[in-house]
Amino acid sequence: MKKMSKRAISLLLATSVGLTASAVWSAETLQDVLKRRNLSQQDLLAAAKTYVPTGKRDEFVTFSSGGQSGQVIVYGVPSMRILKYLAVFTPEPWQGYGYDENSKAVLEQGKIDGKTITWGDTHHPAISETNGEYDGQFLFINDKANPRLAVIDLRDFETKQIVVNPIFKSEHGGAFVSPNTDYVIEAAQYAAPLENKKFYPLEEFNDKYRGGVTYWKFDRKEGRIVPKDSFSLELPPYSQDLSDFGKGPSDGWSFTNSFCSERYVGGIEKGRPPYEAGCSAKDTDYLHVINWKKAAELVAAGKAKKINGHNVIMMDTAVKEGILFLVPEPKSPHGVDVTPDGKFMIVAGKLDTHVSVYSFEKIQAAIKAGKFESKDPYGIPVIALKDAVHVQVPLGLGPLHTQYDSKACIAYTSLYVDSQVAKWNYCEGKVLDKLSVHYNIGHLMSMEGDSTKPAGKYLVALNKLAIDRFVPVGPLHPQNHQLIDISNDKMQLLYDMPLPLGEPHYAVSIAASKLKPGVRYKVGTDSRTDKPHPGAARAGEERVERQGNKVTVYGTLIRSHITPETIEAEVGDEITINLTNLERAQDETHGFTVSTYNVHASVEPGKTVSIKFKADREGVYPYYCTEFCSALHLEMQGYLLVKPKGWKPTKTSLAKASYTEDDYKATLKKVADTQAVIDSVVGYITSVNYKDFPDVVAMVEDATDQLGKIADAKAKHEAAAGKKDWEQANLWAEQVWQYQVKAADLGLRAKTYLEQNGAKKVK
Amino acid sequence: MKKMSKRAISLLLATSVGLTASAVWSAETLQDVLKRRNLSQQDLLAAAKTYVPTGKRDEFVTFSSGGQSGQVIVYGVPSMRILKYLAVFTPEPWQGYGYDENSKAVLEQGKIDGKTITWGDTHHPAISETNGEYDGQFLFINDKANPRLAVIDLRDFETKQIVVNPIFKSEHGGAFVSPNTDYVIEAAQYAAPLENKKFYPLEEFNDKYRGGVTYWKFDRKEGRIVPKDSFSLELPPYSQDLSDFGKGPSDGWSFTNSFCSERYVGGIEKGRPPYEAGCSAKDTDYLHVINWKKAAELVAAGKAKKINGHNVIMMDTAVKEGILFLVPEPKSPHGVDVTPDGKFMIVAGKLDTHVSVYSFEKIQAAIKAGKFESKDPYGIPVIALKDAVHVQVPLGLGPLHTQYDSKACIAYTSLYVDSQVAKWNYCEGKVLDKLSVHYNIGHLMSMEGDSTKPAGKYLVALNKLAIDRFVPVGPLHPQNHQLIDISNDKMQLLYDMPLPLGEPHYAVSIAASKLKPGVRYKVGTDSRTDKPHPGAARAGEERVERQGNKVTVYGTLIRSHITPETIEAEVGDEITINLTNLERAQDETHGFTVSTYNVHASVEPGKTVSIKFKADREGVYPYYCTEFCSALHLEMQGYLLVKPKGWKPTKTSLAKASYTEDDYKATLKKVADTQAVIDSVVGYITSVNYKDFPDVVAMVEDATDQLGKIADAKAKHEAAAGKKDWEQANLWAEQVWQYQVKAADLGLRAKTYLEQNGAKKVK
Repeated sequence: MKKMSKRAISLLLATSVGLTASAVWSAETLQDVLKRRNLSQQDLLAAAKTYVPTGKRDEFVTFSSGGQSGQVIVYGVPSMRILKYLAVFTPEPWQGYGYDENSKAVLEQGKIDGKTITWGDTHHPAISETNGEYDGQFLFINDKANPRLAVIDLRDFETKQIVVNPIFKSEHGGAFVSPNTDYVIEAAQYAAPLENKKFYPLEEFNDKYRGGVTYWKFDRKEGRIVPKDSFSLELPPYSQDLSDFGKGPSDGWSFTNSFCSERYVGGIEKGRPPYEAGCSAKDTDYLHVINWKKAAELVAAGKAKKINGHNVIMMDTAVKEGILFLVPEPKSPHGVDVTPDGKFMIVAGKLDTHVSVYSFEKIQAAIKAGKFESKDPYGIPVIALKDAVHVQVPLGLGPLHTQYDSKACIAYTSLYVDSQVAKWNYCEGKVLDKLSVHYNIGHLMSMEGDSTKPAGKYLVALNKLAIDRFVPVGPLHPQNHQLIDISNDKMQLLYDMPLPLGEPHYAVSIAASKLKPGVRYKVGTDSRTDKPHPGAARAGEERVERQGNKVTVYGTLIRSHITPETIEAEVGDEITINLTNLERAQDETHGFTVSTYNVHASVEPGKTVSIKFKADREGVYPYYCTEFCSALHLEMQGYLLVKPKGWKPTKTSLAKASYTEDDYKATLKKVADTQAVIDSVVGYITSVNYKDFPDVVAMVEDATDQLGKIADAKAKHEAAAGKKDWEQANLWAEQVWQYQVKAADLGLRAKTYLEQNGAKKVK
Repeated sequence: MKKMSKRAISLLLATSVGLTASAVWSAETLQDVLKRRNLSQQDLLAAAKTYVPTGKRDEFVTFSSGGQSGQVIVYGVPSMRILKYLAVFTPEPWQGYGYDENSKAVLEQGKIDGKTITWGDTHHPAISETNGEYDGQFLFINDKANPRLAVIDLRDFETKQIVVNPIFKSEHGGAFVSPNTDYVIEAAQYAAPLENKKFYPLEEFNDKYRGGVTYWKFDRKEGRIVPKDSFSLELPPYSQDLSDFGKGPSDGWSFTNSFCSERYVGGIEKGRPPYEAGCSAKDTDYLHVINWKKAAELVAAGKAKKINGHNVIMMDTAVKEGILFLVPEPKSPHGVDVTPDGKFMIVAGKLDTHVSVYSFEKIQAAIKAGKFESKDPYGIPVIALKDAVHVQVPLGLGPLHTQYDSKACIAYTSLYVDSQVAKWNYCEGKVLDKLSVHYNIGHLMSMEGDSTKPAGKYLVALNKLAIDRFVPVGPLHPQNHQLIDISNDKMQLLYDMPLPLGEPHYAVSIAASKLKPGVRYKVGTDSRTDKPHPGAARAGEERVERQGNKVTVYGTLIRSHITPETIEAEVGDEITINLTNLERAQDETHGFTVSTYNVHASVEPGKTVSIKFKADREGVYPYYCTEFCSALHLEMQGYLLVKPKGWKPTKTSLAKASYTEDDYKATLKKVADTQAVIDSVVGYITSVNYKDFPDVVAMVEDATDQLGKIADAKAKHEAAAGKKDWEQANLWAEQVWQYQVKAADLGLRAKTYLEQNGAKKVK
């Protein structure tokens, strides 16, 4: 058995010159592969349009709702590779979300009636906009099951805030942002009394049950919703649904559609047909047309009523002030989608074959002229369909949702029952193309397709059923998102993508170039508040403090050790462990858990995280870094010792190993050999313009940090050697080598990066 | 506005003849695309090797640990598309796991010291084997953070059982199965006292801290581990690590390696170098060689000691009985991997440049000859390395884990520090090829690569760092699994796959053809026990029962209604809702939640699930189906009414809608038109050999079921019409149409399926 020899270490330098560089690595030709895999030329074209080779990146990033998983799914287009599941409403241990104290504080904001909710049914994500264009700063998403809205910061892709809707018991129509993201819409779904914890029987449905729409005020600078500056509009119990903000000429207005305006209450057990029959018995439902800018002024003028402490403009006020109107819309519509130019709103009734294109200009003309065909039972003026509609186009069965192309007047509408996508011209009311999808498409989504500047190129069909598309994985199937090329006249189906967790409802895509997330935090940051963490510690500041039965650890993490490596406690102690990740290298996350204590932290570079638990059981509980962070990650460990109360030690020294002077000398030899490798790598790095590469600068900083620790360990091994304490001498010399190995690892990564990214020689 | 007209409905029949069938759908040539996307010919070849077009399926299915997510990740090879995240140790609401009572019962099995654990750190999955070959029946996976093991049934991809290790406080080396899956290995990691809740100081580490290995007995017929028939071996406090079972000539033996056999206790805060230095100071650690078949006999013979009620063979017994031996292995090894023929065990020391190929024959010869170089401090005989090793091969820096090819003597070993994969010949000790990966590969995995019959073809590199490979998504990066073509002499890198949630440690791949999961349950099944669910109800059996303050609902789900549609309770009632999904169509899952009560059920076809909560707040709480199951899924709703205690109604009738005789007649017309569509579809289906397609038979059954409900609704609307009650007449006629629409939807799906799958005309 050899120790790591000079020869072996020198292999370190050879890693980037693999044997494969110039080798002929394939025995099969392209034609062989096509034949073997039974691929057509069309398949090959689709493969070429979607494949992203190693080292290259996707063009767009999609944020998809995760449905009942309570999460947000992030994937790349055109490769359709999922990049991340973001924890939003549901605890998720990989991210430490709900398993550390800092993220728990976010989840606790989402309590309803004082009770913690541990999941959500996320439906509609929205990216923040500036002048109606996606700006890539924030993401909003709603929870249908428990009426709430979350704010995700796209600087670090973390959930920062959850707000609970103050008046709804059910919602669906969020999130949609105003063109400058000053407000976010959350519309109700199933009507209920607006007062919290208030019961009225179904027999009083028409009088006491209400819908509504909430306008959440967003403070972009703070990156948080401001509940006290937010308000709602009371609406009839019509099962409000999706919404959209106006833009351009329609800026200042918002649109919310509805189903079951029949106000039907079903129940086979009461001898009545179910909801599905009674809620779809009439030909039309209502599109709500709301002047939200004026509504905000009314709230400022004190014309709102407080319900559950929240400002609500009641329907009679809204009617009197002229900010609320209805227009009939084809039965049971799903989406209402404002065109990029803000001139039209497209609505599809899922039980009608038509899409209806409403003209904002016509609606305004009717309002100005006071031309209404009737009032609804609550006194809201109803504009006649003929006075509001620009064109109606028969598309097919089950039209649901519409998205826009970069080309003028071009729209795409999903057809649920037909399992098709229709491409059509909404200016001229003409169908241009249809494409079958697999199966039962709900929403669809084009690149930046609900902004003022759609990017075209790709469309994603969010299919609700996959059935036979994938290798079967049991009775519960994945969803299927199908990528469609829309850059040509005819749509081309490119790719079937299974969604492995949760049922996405809607998605939004943004050009990848608009996202500029960070790779590390300022050392000692609480990422959930964006503020310095009171538990932060820098290297050398690690300590354990005890106050009564409260033990507080101020610890650090760096390859490959946790400081402290032993935590001592007595049964019953309340333990808080604060951990700061001292790394600066990209992707050098450490994790932390204490066996069986049900805590977990994910600590990215620079972050500080707290975990807290009661040491309620005597015993020995190992803790460790849960990320494979380095070759010695298994050795990144420690022990929580929970002693019986009043326990006194009888033995006070740890077992010693029997290292000899020869062991010490061999270790010194290894240290010298490794230093030669480091010197060579440093020589390369400093010979090129490495300072032009921020990622390399961070790696060099981390490596320098590791090398900086050597002086102290060297002093220790030399002192021990002076006293012929070969155990301590050898161990501290080994520790010098540990620092060297990490520095060398970073140096080699930096070298590879520089070589691959075209670094240039400098003097 | 038109009602759905005959013309519109007839579109139903046209759906499978899209406009695109014969269209030229692409304006770009392949060369255009390669140029635009800057793809090389090698990229195109890789794309052709990995792309799976719609309607085709992957060749292999991979089960990957989900690391700190506590889940298992299922993905297809070669497309590298993730098919499913399986909930194992962590509650997951999409699957209802931990949000319904039946799955909660599984999670509760995993309590430790009486406390619920809500996550896991899954590491090493294992597929059940028959004669050493993967059989695709069960999957096992361990939890490093909280020593536990889970059983997943691959008939429905659900977690059925969690067992808690009775003696370990930390583990790592599981799960590995014996060639016929009669036992599953779980080996310890960080040593601790074996007794539960027992404290000993670190100063007594060598005497009181112990490692070990547990052999869990698996009952294949029941599909469950049998804890009382399982046993463990006490081992020295050497930080046991990965393990493997022997096979063929080495069947009956198992192998477990270790690191930190220095038994070092670190702690900078005590003036000692950290664990990483002291745990890697010596040149070798120990491979544990165990005769497990004889161990099982010793347990049967009563030679085990009970610790925490569990059978443990103590070290002195194991030594005395000759079932436990040690062999030195290169420092800090990770994997020990038995060759497909069972003749060799390959071990890689991550701080040594060599892999060591141990010969089982040599080890047995040494044991038989009683030829040992020494004993360890616990009296265990140590076989000299030279007496056990077949060959040692220098591969590179940080060798970790080895997998096998279908070609004889060919192995692949991951090199963590070098970020490379080495292909080599373990018979001749020769390096054949190296490939750079991105970055820092941990485990690697070839198709069925740890069975007796590896399938070759593909290799996956499980890289621990992704760094710059993907569009950045914040400081916490995805992992990167790289797919490598190993069918030729030279390895070819095919695909970079981001892992969006959790850090996979190890993975196993099986031919997709070996998996035969079901698509539905026998009606009324509790999928977690595989037994009839006591809360099951069939159509017409739905009811609500009250006993004191306990309200029990026996409900059903079918497109698009929940029965019952109203549940009435008083504040303080304990509510149990049992729901049976009556669908038989594949992929027709329904979900269920009650707003703000923090419950969720995923109810696949045939399944029965219970949810339970206390109605602790007065009010109106909507409930709904959380899956987009049909065009009218939003109407699949109901209300939980929680009344104040003693509340008495004053109004007893629901509001009526004002439908006229004309409405009724129009609905009857729609019903007649739809029937024509149905008749036509039925005509087609019965004209072909549909009975040869089980999926179609299920759809036809469901459709027939829907049509069967029409008689009752028809009788109701005719009776109401007779009484000129046009509201009831119209509503029940609408309900007839609802049943028709669902039948038509199913029929059309069946028709498309038959057309796409080559159904043939019959007489």
